Amino acid sequence: MHIPKQVTVKEVGPRDGLQNEKELIATEDKVEWINQLSDTGLSYIEISSFVHPKWIPQLGDALDVAKQIKRQKDITYAALVPNAKGLERALEADVDEISIFMSASETHNKKNINKTIEETFPVLEEVVKGGRQEGKSVRAYISTVFGCPYEGHIPIDNTLRICERLFEMGIYELSIGDTIGVANPLQVERVLTRMKDTFEHDSLALHFHDTRGTALANVLTALQLGFTTFDSALGGLGGCPYAQGATGNLATDDLLYMLDGMEIETGIHKDKLYHAASFIQSKMDKSLPSHQMQIGDSI
Amino acid sequence: MHIPKQVTVKEVGPRDGLQNEKELIATEDKVEWINQLSDTGLSYIEISSFVHPKWIPQLGDALDVAKQIKRQKDITYAALVPNAKGLERALEADVDEISIFMSASETHNKKNINKTIEETFPVLEEVVKGGRQEGKSVRAYISTVFGCPYEGHIPIDNTLRICERLFEMGIYELSIGDTIGVANPLQVERVLTRMKDTFEHDSLALHFHDTRGTALANVLTALQLGFTTFDSALGGLGGCPYAQGATGNLATDDLLYMLDGMEIETGIHKDKLYHAASFIQSKMDKSLPSHQMQIGDSI
Repeated sequence: MHIPKQVTVKEVGPRDGLQNEKELIATEDKVEWINQLSDTGLSYIEISSFVHPKWIPQLGDALDVAKQIKRQKDITYAALVPNAKGLERALEADVDEISIFMSASETHNKKNINKTIEETFPVLEEVVKGGRQEGKSVRAYISTVFGCPYEGHIPIDNTLRICERLFEMGIYELSIGDTIGVANPLQVERVLTRMKDTFEHDSLALHFHDTRGTALANVLTALQLGFTTFDSALGGLGGCPYAQGATGNLATDDLLYMLDGMEIETGIHKDKLYHAASFIQSKMDKSLPSHQMQIGDSI
Repeated sequence: MHIPKQVTVKEVGPRDGLQNEKELIATEDKVEWINQLSDTGLSYIEISSFVHPKWIPQLGDALDVAKQIKRQKDITYAALVPNAKGLERALEADVDEISIFMSASETHNKKNINKTIEETFPVLEEVVKGGRQEGKSVRAYISTVFGCPYEGHIPIDNTLRICERLFEMGIYELSIGDTIGVANPLQVERVLTRMKDTFEHDSLALHFHDTRGTALANVLTALQLGFTTFDSALGGLGGCPYAQGATGNLATDDLLYMLDGMEIETGIHKDKLYHAASFIQSKMDKSLPSHQMQIGDSI
């Protein structure tokens, strides 16, 4: 099996996970959780979002979280930023990295950001420019690449044109999102082959959701194509905003189980990760949906 | 991607699924469910088990189920048989095919069958001989191939020796089981490469459990190695006997979602399968754990 020896896992639970949970987690618990995550061996944590609290009240304490966490110097602490106002707050919070986001689907972009795709570019350009001027690296999420809840199939050529614009702005990495978890390995192979023919291989990351159980099969396909950067959320936090009870983000602990078994290095300590997952679970009114958390210590 | 154009899915829900559910399902509901499964396009259904009802009371009505279902002539109706007594009842039930089973792990075999591996062979030999004399095909399950809840790692050479004995008895197919759902794609590649070097490729089937979320990634690996027969249980019925709340059998509906997306033919109609899953779910006190059933019709 031709697979990489080493993979980078980017933990998005504190942002993409918590933003889709109804429950409000106390700031001090988020801080403690992120501090625990910093001790697991993860090299990247997306800690919060500077989207206006009116839209995502769960992450309204982004500035406090950023200021209170204990930062380790070999870890990149990132935050989501939607526009110039968000950038201002992110710079005040002094995060290491800015994440921007838009959709490959016109309808999803409109519903999510309230702008057409064309209207979104100048807003993001201002963020990228402003962030980079202050020495921040900028990463972009492109969502609904493998399918849209409103439009269904998204033509890859449209997606590639959007991604080109994002790279032209100065992002260093693009995270390719299966936002509603519809992708299958054949489709992943087709899309990623076009992606790596167009952009630098190591400037691309994968962001899979496990809504239909295919996330790890899709990761496997990406590994076989040589991709080495994967987003995931500890415990499968976040659920799926489009389907009650369904799982959302690929769980970091499930991803790690497979990567460990495949002898791929991540630098992450399984036991410390389990500890951090148990901590955030204890602050919530539900059990985390990842397979590893459902099994617990029983086998 | 080198993958087969066509795959056979063997539905084991009425046996491997229901035997691990605490709830007792009424015989008439099982019969109705199997009749619905017969209308989905499935070509193989394992309908029950002739293990003594003292051990598996959930399937104590195997004879009634076998006699009452409406059989379609292009479908193989199989049942699990542990010994000569079970065979007698299976022959009375006139199932098309007999499944025998044993474990690759000495400890698991002992706990499951109450015999050593060596003591198990003559018992199974009698079943295979007796079944074939009556014109029945015989299939074998070999469990815990990828790991055992008691012994951990199971050496592949031991497994191969057991499988050789099973083929020598006259089975036409061997279903290779990841009983506790621990396998990962690299391990699957290693084990299956040895398996197909030793036995006829098309006499081997895969029986994955999704306990750690890796089942579809493991299916993908097997597909890439050219394997074309997969066991699964509709809705992910069955759970995991070793861990409360964890998932067990790979769900037929999750498997079908991936295979359909990968343009692999199975002959199974998705909507009819969903109908059958909804029916059995309505007879149970829980929602079925498969991803497709959790999503329902919402996306």
